[in-house]
Amino acid sequence: MDLLQKGWFTEFSPDDLEKIKKTSSGDSKQLKSDGKEMGGAWPGQAFSLQIEEVLFHEKSKYQDVLVFKSKTYGNVLILDGIIQCTERDEFAYQEMLAHLPLFAHPNPKKVLIIGGGDGGILREVLKHASVESVTMCEIDEMVIDVSKKYLPGMAEQFGNPKFNLFIGDGFEFLKNHKNEFDVVITDSSDPVGPAESLFGQSYYQLLSESMKNGGILSSQAESVWLHLELISHMIEFTKKIFPTVQYASSIMSTYPSGTMGYLIASKDNRDVTKPARTLTSEEIKSMNLKFYNSELHSAAFILPTFVNQALQGSK
Amino acid sequence: MDLLQKGWFTEFSPDDLEKIKKTSSGDSKQLKSDGKEMGGAWPGQAFSLQIEEVLFHEKSKYQDVLVFKSKTYGNVLILDGIIQCTERDEFAYQEMLAHLPLFAHPNPKKVLIIGGGDGGILREVLKHASVESVTMCEIDEMVIDVSKKYLPGMAEQFGNPKFNLFIGDGFEFLKNHKNEFDVVITDSSDPVGPAESLFGQSYYQLLSESMKNGGILSSQAESVWLHLELISHMIEFTKKIFPTVQYASSIMSTYPSGTMGYLIASKDNRDVTKPARTLTSEEIKSMNLKFYNSELHSAAFILPTFVNQALQGSK
Repeated sequence: MDLLQKGWFTEFSPDDLEKIKKTSSGDSKQLKSDGKEMGGAWPGQAFSLQIEEVLFHEKSKYQDVLVFKSKTYGNVLILDGIIQCTERDEFAYQEMLAHLPLFAHPNPKKVLIIGGGDGGILREVLKHASVESVTMCEIDEMVIDVSKKYLPGMAEQFGNPKFNLFIGDGFEFLKNHKNEFDVVITDSSDPVGPAESLFGQSYYQLLSESMKNGGILSSQAESVWLHLELISHMIEFTKKIFPTVQYASSIMSTYPSGTMGYLIASKDNRDVTKPARTLTSEEIKSMNLKFYNSELHSAAFILPTFVNQALQGSK
Repeated sequence: MDLLQKGWFTEFSPDDLEKIKKTSSGDSKQLKSDGKEMGGAWPGQAFSLQIEEVLFHEKSKYQDVLVFKSKTYGNVLILDGIIQCTERDEFAYQEMLAHLPLFAHPNPKKVLIIGGGDGGILREVLKHASVESVTMCEIDEMVIDVSKKYLPGMAEQFGNPKFNLFIGDGFEFLKNHKNEFDVVITDSSDPVGPAESLFGQSYYQLLSESMKNGGILSSQAESVWLHLELISHMIEFTKKIFPTVQYASSIMSTYPSGTMGYLIASKDNRDVTKPARTLTSEEIKSMNLKFYNSELHSAAFILPTFVNQALQGSK
């Protein structure tokens, strides 16, 4: 788009981008998603960041990988045209996705991350002294490689002796791991492209089987402003598998509509909206937590009325 | 910008817009605000909405007034290039700015709105049965006129017999009103252009004098992602005038970085983070509250760690 050429990157909704491309090529066919809510879509709105310098742009086996230095958000990782993280605000997402399940758990030892190739979730998980091992299953090795090079503050723990890396498909990995993990974190991109299967019921069945009794999971679960139907659907089928399912939402400056949601489920009846371990302000400092705190843990599960009403049937 | 011509409206930060205009006219002089935090600025990022049809575009005595029908957010009001409200998400802002002070107050009878020409705050204030009169002081009559025409769901209460309108400057109005209001709501645009003076200490001194004992105020108070210095400064000087000052933050899809903050201050020691009157789900329905609820009232004051740390000195 023109903004790119003028030094701005614009994140269009995947369906809008498709239409814009088709229009430029003279093909005016509308996509099926037009006018209908679709996970990972935000039709009619777009967010832009000013580019200082493009640092990396290649196609991996799975997706288009772009890294640029932005004017005001540090380095930015883009996959298939969608912002994954910026150095300025990544902590908000990483801390909530990682610490909601980890602090809801009384003693997490073995942790699995599905996706998370930028290393941010790994960094947060290893702040918990109880954690003995962290396994990451990432499908796209190029994401890890570019993060090590261009997002060193996120990728800082790839050399940690507690860390195991598995390059491959999350589904395949889970089939061979049963009854093993205390916490499983799905840090995926949107349900368009390689991450699509990570938003379905059969994936959650496998997640459950991979977890020990008392295990807790968290998953990237889109935006209350944009994806209430998908969220409602996810809660509904997750409740068939887990006795406890809750949804949290918090702010995230560079994600569509400025929000991100987190699906939290437990294999027992634990109240995941309350941290099992609370933090003093000294502990917050020593763990270098810039977003998460014990009060915010519970507050993130308190949702606006329109969200409560939309999720009422599924909750 | 090109996006406008292609059917998209792009909201640049006022300082970026200035630079883009200067660059197009061959003048590359940088603004003073460059690289420095400025209230009402969000350099290096931009938000866009797809336009279906431009409905109104004129210059008033004070500002550029644009209304368009968007593809996915209903009708949108833009003042001086900045999104003020969209029909799809306006309730989030209106309900929080209005109901945080109104529900923190045990019995609000006389309410003043400074700004608020679109009518959304007025609509929310009049949902409180205790309210006997609402006065609005709006500087720009054109905002009221276009809202009546293009935002009828917001402007629906301008004919209410409890409503009094004063067209003029907030400062001037306040000088002649002492010890009069239970709740005062400042629903201003950003501190660039006509609303600049509404972010200073002398304005808050006048607000305080206009309020009865036990009075509570709320003000639009920018974004935790973008304006921590301004917020910290506002809290600092407001605390010199009011015994109770608190800051709440919540999500707002079409405002910069997807967040909006609310400064709440009380003339007595009341804990404004707790509603003085709580709502049942029946009351929420009968008041048609789509965002606010009693749990969210308190949760909105629970802030991320980086915000707590930045405001620590001032709080």
